[in-house]
Amino acid sequence: MHKYKLSISYDGTDFHGWQSQPDHRTVQDQLETAITKLLGHRPHMVGSGRTDAGVHALGQVAHFQTSLKLLPEVVLKVFRFNLPDDVVVWDCVEVPLSFHAIKDAVSKRYRYVIQDGDIRNPFTRNHCTRVRTVLDIELMRKALKAILGTHDFRCFETNWPNRTSSVRTIIDVAVERVNNLVHIEVEADGFLYNMVRAIAGTLIRIGRKFWPVSAMEEIVSSMDRNKAGPTAPATGLFLLYVKYPEKNLETFSH
Amino acid sequence: MHKYKLSISYDGTDFHGWQSQPDHRTVQDQLETAITKLLGHRPHMVGSGRTDAGVHALGQVAHFQTSLKLLPEVVLKVFRFNLPDDVVVWDCVEVPLSFHAIKDAVSKRYRYVIQDGDIRNPFTRNHCTRVRTVLDIELMRKALKAILGTHDFRCFETNWPNRTSSVRTIIDVAVERVNNLVHIEVEADGFLYNMVRAIAGTLIRIGRKFWPVSAMEEIVSSMDRNKAGPTAPATGLFLLYVKYPEKNLETFSH
Repeated sequence: MHKYKLSISYDGTDFHGWQSQPDHRTVQDQLETAITKLLGHRPHMVGSGRTDAGVHALGQVAHFQTSLKLLPEVVLKVFRFNLPDDVVVWDCVEVPLSFHAIKDAVSKRYRYVIQDGDIRNPFTRNHCTRVRTVLDIELMRKALKAILGTHDFRCFETNWPNRTSSVRTIIDVAVERVNNLVHIEVEADGFLYNMVRAIAGTLIRIGRKFWPVSAMEEIVSSMDRNKAGPTAPATGLFLLYVKYPEKNLETFSH
Repeated sequence: MHKYKLSISYDGTDFHGWQSQPDHRTVQDQLETAITKLLGHRPHMVGSGRTDAGVHALGQVAHFQTSLKLLPEVVLKVFRFNLPDDVVVWDCVEVPLSFHAIKDAVSKRYRYVIQDGDIRNPFTRNHCTRVRTVLDIELMRKALKAILGTHDFRCFETNWPNRTSSVRTIIDVAVERVNNLVHIEVEADGFLYNMVRAIAGTLIRIGRKFWPVSAMEEIVSSMDRNKAGPTAPATGLFLLYVKYPEKNLETFSH
């Protein structure tokens, strides 16, 4: 058997998310269908995590197995030829059979994009969320930095409890103004369901000065989803990358 | 009576072009509907020119008349509130009643955007045309410069003859690589139907080295639509701006 790791980018606008569902257009289905003819069988694509309908990815990672030894450049070519315009596989490497896209992920980084103020850009409408107030990004940055580290983040989880533990470690955060957009970035060892969107919804309230900077820490301490801001729309969310321990790939390449 | 000049940007992807048509979503209709309540009547929006289905605009210009004296900032606010996300009115000025968006236009500039080579970007798919070959932009630039000036451009007109004259003057051209995209820009005193898209289709053939640089001049001399390249897809075309004589607005602002 051989295992291949794919790096994938997609515009989530016209997808019903990552995971296969009957009667819906999903990224997983598109990928599986695109490579079926080459393999002679439909592979099972294991994504590093599900993204919801409307959520985008710059660096989603998935793996699949097959009995065939494939040249990565051939795999890329087949995807290029068979995939629709809104999803692209931009890297393929063979990995050891022990590799697992979900279990081996060390961290993930998401970006949430907001267009604030009165100016609208019709060309980015599906790739951000609009907030009419000009956001105070200094306040947002202070609030976000206050929750760096390991906490029980159930306050930011939709439908808690979904998992055995809601403790996660936020490794890095950033709030930046890029052109006319505000980028919120959060990197963590794992995320709860809708966690980044709930963090974004809370930060927007702080950036609009509805809530003080201190609200962020208080919300985390409360462990109460009702205390946090609303789940911000999917359209502003991008999965930036998924990190794996280097050794996996180093082991393989020798 | 009062007359107002609007500057408009739209993503043409989900529009059936500028001009009102029964049972189709058009930019003109959206604008007219958005301002009807404020005016108490449906105005007639006169655009500087029609754009086809799928064609985008950064700086389309239109005018409308009403008996009301309106503050431009109120007009902008009403559009902001009532327009869908894919069209924005970003400027409004009152102009003399003699102003006419079509007749007074001195020149227009279009950009045609091409993503060339093997890398695809799922986020720009509706805002460019894809060509798998890496284009030689030096050859394209030489070819485009060769048709600067006044010529009979019927070779680039779909369904000629549509107008009384197919003589136009190309004032400025540019071919540039911007990030991973190729931008073709053409400014002229006026354009024939599908002219920029036929020029782009011809330049793509030259950039792929199917045709020599000299083909461009020969095609213009031939005055034969069949000699030129295909009409490139609407999705890559942007109306950048429309120029009017300064005096129109200067007269008014005093």
